[in-house]
Amino acid sequence: MKMSVVAVDMGGTQTRVAHLAGGRLHRRKAFPTRDVDTLVAAIGAVAPRGPYAVGIAFAGALDMRRGRILNSPNLREWQDLDLPQELGSRLGRPVYLANDASCAALGELTRGFRARDFAYVTWSTGIGGGFVSGGRVLWGNTGMAAEVGHIVLRPDGPLCDCGKHGCLEAIAAGAGIRRLTRERMGSALSAEETVARARAGEKVPADIVNTACRAFAQGLSIVSELLEPEVLLLGGGITLSWDYLGPKVERALRAFSRNAPPVRLTELGDDVGLYGAAALPEHWPEEWPPPTRSSSGAPGS
Amino acid sequence: MKMSVVAVDMGGTQTRVAHLAGGRLHRRKAFPTRDVDTLVAAIGAVAPRGPYAVGIAFAGALDMRRGRILNSPNLREWQDLDLPQELGSRLGRPVYLANDASCAALGELTRGFRARDFAYVTWSTGIGGGFVSGGRVLWGNTGMAAEVGHIVLRPDGPLCDCGKHGCLEAIAAGAGIRRLTRERMGSALSAEETVARARAGEKVPADIVNTACRAFAQGLSIVSELLEPEVLLLGGGITLSWDYLGPKVERALRAFSRNAPPVRLTELGDDVGLYGAAALPEHWPEEWPPPTRSSSGAPGS
Repeated sequence: MKMSVVAVDMGGTQTRVAHLAGGRLHRRKAFPTRDVDTLVAAIGAVAPRGPYAVGIAFAGALDMRRGRILNSPNLREWQDLDLPQELGSRLGRPVYLANDASCAALGELTRGFRARDFAYVTWSTGIGGGFVSGGRVLWGNTGMAAEVGHIVLRPDGPLCDCGKHGCLEAIAAGAGIRRLTRERMGSALSAEETVARARAGEKVPADIVNTACRAFAQGLSIVSELLEPEVLLLGGGITLSWDYLGPKVERALRAFSRNAPPVRLTELGDDVGLYGAAALPEHWPEEWPPPTRSSSGAPGS
Repeated sequence: MKMSVVAVDMGGTQTRVAHLAGGRLHRRKAFPTRDVDTLVAAIGAVAPRGPYAVGIAFAGALDMRRGRILNSPNLREWQDLDLPQELGSRLGRPVYLANDASCAALGELTRGFRARDFAYVTWSTGIGGGFVSGGRVLWGNTGMAAEVGHIVLRPDGPLCDCGKHGCLEAIAAGAGIRRLTRERMGSALSAEETVARARAGEKVPADIVNTACRAFAQGLSIVSELLEPEVLLLGGGITLSWDYLGPKVERALRAFSRNAPPVRLTELGDDVGLYGAAALPEHWPEEWPPPTRSSSGAPGS
């Protein structure tokens, strides 16, 4: 029997927890992301009586191998926290922590798309990614692989939140579109509003959307040349306008690629992060030490 | 006991074969790359009496899964050939075929650098790559992952041999440097000559070298954001001038990266491809069917 898991999807504003048993999510809870006490209480409220592990999909930079949160733009109080240690000692359970976008790819691998080679890219306020190769998530050296949003496309381009210039995210993601609309139209528009105005035929929003689509396609083509995925699997709020954006992105993708893989939209919805978090204990890289920080003995006991 | 392997490193101009036994390369032969007959004769000349497999590192585009050569700029007569089928039926041995740069990464994994997470990038007439993640080569869907030279950095940049514009290779590799020197100086110079003139203080060659270094660093930074390797391992003829180029590349790499991994030069030399080819039968992706095309029965029999 598989181990019972409490899954946590911890975003910049909202945290969701659920208990995965028998392949299904039970006793879901959602609440504003706050402090460790709140998280401990929420996990306790959904946890089963028997042994369980905790899997956490976290929106921010971390060191999976060392179990440490490095930083997160919207979660400053969590910075430098050894969350597996802290939670593990309070809950008496092993805690597995990973980056949210790679967790989403893991959710797709185990519950959604299920292909052996695919690249998952999320296009939203930021741009993130998770890669699956040969049926395994490509975590990278510390769990921070697949940072699709922070590949530098224009060395002299706009400043990114990360401190570099010309990152894909700074050009094509929601935050970049907001900045461009403010600069060129005098008022900052969301990606959704910008797309709506482009659809209605306004020239400047249409320009901004075309630039974003072209940069996003360039990023996808680079992912394709480096990973050679069977499929590019897309998610995130901006892809909700795929009927309008898709043809622009796919046309540019073909121009930038020799053999562009097919593009598909994720069908797993909001639960992808929870499913990925729930699969973390089983899919933890075999070469990394499992968390053994619970106060009640061996992991999974 | 490991299976005995005849390793083939097949380049655009030269082919090398050797028999790997007891972890060492024996009976090496090198000859100009020509036709299948020549290759069959060379393999026969170095092959052992008993059972063996053949591993081939091939300089060009191929479909590893289907065992087919798609094309190679300098090897047109091999185009569309099912080399494992053709060789396998003539030799009566299983034949494994893979891209040369990914084979080089496999050679580094098994005989050279041996880390579990690294990106190997070769900087020469072209730019190629091979990635190792979690101790396994990342082959991609058909064996064409890690095409570092063909990521598009400048959509309006120079035409690449592959038909796209602004590929890293078209800007920073030997062929790109040759084109730039012809355009800006009136005569085409090799990368080596261009670097020599830059060292001597000539302004235009220095500009061209700086541009190449900056683009190469941008490519390395993208590889780092997407793969998060522990180390960037570099090879290829242009890195022989690393004393001059290294500081330029590393400075730009730090500007383009949040956490650039350390850069190391390969120490395995010319045998890296042969060692990688020799390791192919053992490291063939488990989810792919092994070649069973030999006329004398099961693979490895």
